[in-house]
Amino acid sequence: MENASRLLRPLLDGNPRALARAISWMENGHAEARSLMASVWPHLGRAMVIGLTGAPGSGKSTLTDQLARALRAEGKRVGILAVDPTSPFSGGAILGDRIRMGRIAADPGVFIRSMATRGALGGLARATQDAIDLLDAAGWDVVIVETVGVGQDEVDVVSCVETCCVVLVPGMGDEIQAIKAGIMEVADIFIVNKADRDGVEKVEMEIQAMKSLGSVKAWDPPALRTVASQGEGIAELLGKTREHGAWLKAHGGFQAKARERARIRFDALLAEEASRRARARAGSPRVEAVIQAIADRSMDPYAAVDQVLGY
Amino acid sequence: MENASRLLRPLLDGNPRALARAISWMENGHAEARSLMASVWPHLGRAMVIGLTGAPGSGKSTLTDQLARALRAEGKRVGILAVDPTSPFSGGAILGDRIRMGRIAADPGVFIRSMATRGALGGLARATQDAIDLLDAAGWDVVIVETVGVGQDEVDVVSCVETCCVVLVPGMGDEIQAIKAGIMEVADIFIVNKADRDGVEKVEMEIQAMKSLGSVKAWDPPALRTVASQGEGIAELLGKTREHGAWLKAHGGFQAKARERARIRFDALLAEEASRRARARAGSPRVEAVIQAIADRSMDPYAAVDQVLGY
Repeated sequence: MENASRLLRPLLDGNPRALARAISWMENGHAEARSLMASVWPHLGRAMVIGLTGAPGSGKSTLTDQLARALRAEGKRVGILAVDPTSPFSGGAILGDRIRMGRIAADPGVFIRSMATRGALGGLARATQDAIDLLDAAGWDVVIVETVGVGQDEVDVVSCVETCCVVLVPGMGDEIQAIKAGIMEVADIFIVNKADRDGVEKVEMEIQAMKSLGSVKAWDPPALRTVASQGEGIAELLGKTREHGAWLKAHGGFQAKARERARIRFDALLAEEASRRARARAGSPRVEAVIQAIADRSMDPYAAVDQVLGY
Repeated sequence: MENASRLLRPLLDGNPRALARAISWMENGHAEARSLMASVWPHLGRAMVIGLTGAPGSGKSTLTDQLARALRAEGKRVGILAVDPTSPFSGGAILGDRIRMGRIAADPGVFIRSMATRGALGGLARATQDAIDLLDAAGWDVVIVETVGVGQDEVDVVSCVETCCVVLVPGMGDEIQAIKAGIMEVADIFIVNKADRDGVEKVEMEIQAMKSLGSVKAWDPPALRTVASQGEGIAELLGKTREHGAWLKAHGGFQAKARERARIRFDALLAEEASRRARARAGSPRVEAVIQAIADRSMDPYAAVDQVLGY
C-alpha cells in the first residue's frame, strides 16, 4: 500500500496524477487519508475558492468554462469541482457537461473532477472540502465549485466557498427559481445568465424583491448580466469576485467563513468517526442483528442505537 | 413538559393536533421523542406508503392532490409529507403548493405536513421516516411522500417508501430529466404527466432506453400517462400502485424494503447519537476550541475529531 509521505511530494509539486489519487483517497476513506491531510494542512490557505450554483440548464458549466479560460489567460491554474448529488446510483448530467468542455480539459493547468456522494453521511460536503484543500496545497490558484444547489449537502458545500455565485436565467419559470430559495440567502453575487433572452429585467426585479425580504447584509450582493456562451460579462464577473474577496479580507469575513467551514467539517467528521468506532466496538454481527430487529419491528431504532453504543 | 404517555392516547386515536405535535417532537429532538417512538413501535405496519418524486414544474403536487381525492372518495385517510430540502434557510416552493391545495387541506381526513431539513446530519430522511411511522400509528391508511428527488437525503427518503413513483414531463428538456438519473434506478412506476403535451412518445422512449441500460429487475417498472390537472390516469395510477404493493408482498419485497429502511434509519440515528454523546463527554468549550483550531489551521480536522473522541 502506498503511504502518505510518498504521495505528499508530487502532490505539493502540483502533479495532477498525485492530486487525482489524493482526492480518491479522501473519497474512499483510504487508510492513509488522515495522515495525508495532516501533512498538507500547513500548506493551505492560498487558493481563491469560488462557488457557482444554478439549476440544470442555467448554463453554469459554460460559465465555469469561460471563467477558467479567463483565469488561464492570466496564467492561473484552475481546479474545477463538479458536485453531482445524483451520482450514487448512476452518474448524472455533469459528466456530459465535462465532455463538452473537451478543449479546456486538455489543458494541464486545468484540473477537473466530478464529486459524487459516496453514501457516507455528510460525505459530499466533506469530500468536496478535502478536494478543495488538496488543490490548494498542490498550488492551484483558483478552485471553482459547481453545484446544482438543492439539498443540505449542497448548502454545506456552498458554505465552504469564499464567494458564492448564484446563477439565474430569464424565463425559466418561477417554480424552478423558487426551489433555490435556500441557496439565495448564501449568495454573494447573483448572475443573470443568458441575458440576451427576454425577461432579464423581471429576474433582476425578483432578485431585488427577494433581497428586500432577507436580512440586511454588510455586503450587498450585486446582480450581474452574462451571456456565457458568448463570453459576455465574464471579465466583470471575475472582477466582482475579486472585489468580494478583498472585501472579505478587509472586514474579517475570511475568519468568519473559515470558522463556518471548520464547524461543518468537524460536525461531519465527528459523526462519521464516532459512528465508525461504535460499529467497530460492537462488531458487525451485533450491528446486523439490531438492524434486522428494527426491520422485524421487535426493537425500535432508538433502543437499537442505545444498545450498540452500550457495547 | 408534556410526556410521551399523555400524547400517546390521542395520537393512536388519530387526533391531528397530537400527530402534528408528535412530528414536531421528532424533528426537534424533544426529550420525550425516543420514549414516544418506542411506545408507537408496536402499532406500526398498516399504512401504504407511496413516494412521488419529480422536478419542480412536473406537477407532482397536483398528482398528490388528485391521488388524495381518489383515496378520500374510498374513505381512506391520507397523510401527505412534502419534503423540501431547500427549507433550512427560508422555506421554499412547497408551501405555495400547499396553499393551492386549500380545498383538500380543509378535509380532516387529510393531514399535510412540509418536512424541512433541520440541519442535523441525516436529519431529513430520519424525520420523514419518523413522520411516516407516526401517521401509520395514528391510523392513516395511506402516506404520500412528495420529493424533488435530488440529493442524498432525498435518495434516502425515497428508499423508505414502498412504491416509488417518478414523475416526468414531455418537453422539459434533457438536462432537467438527466439530473434525476440517480432517482431513476429506484423507480417502481414511471408517470408521464402532462401527457396532453407534445413529446409523450419521446419521454416514453427515453424511459425504455434507460431501463435497458439498467439492471434487469424482477418488477418491471411500467410507464403510465396522466394529465393530473384533469384527473386523467389517476385511477390507473392508484391501481398500479396497489398492484406493486401486492407484488412486493408476494415476493418478499416488503421484508427487503423493511431491512433497507431499518439500515438507513439505524445509520442516521447512530451517527447523530454517537456524535451527541461524544460532544457531551468533551463539553462545549473543548469542542468550540478545536473548531477554532481548525479554522486557525493550527489543527487538522481529523486530529481535532480524534481529540474530542478521546475525552
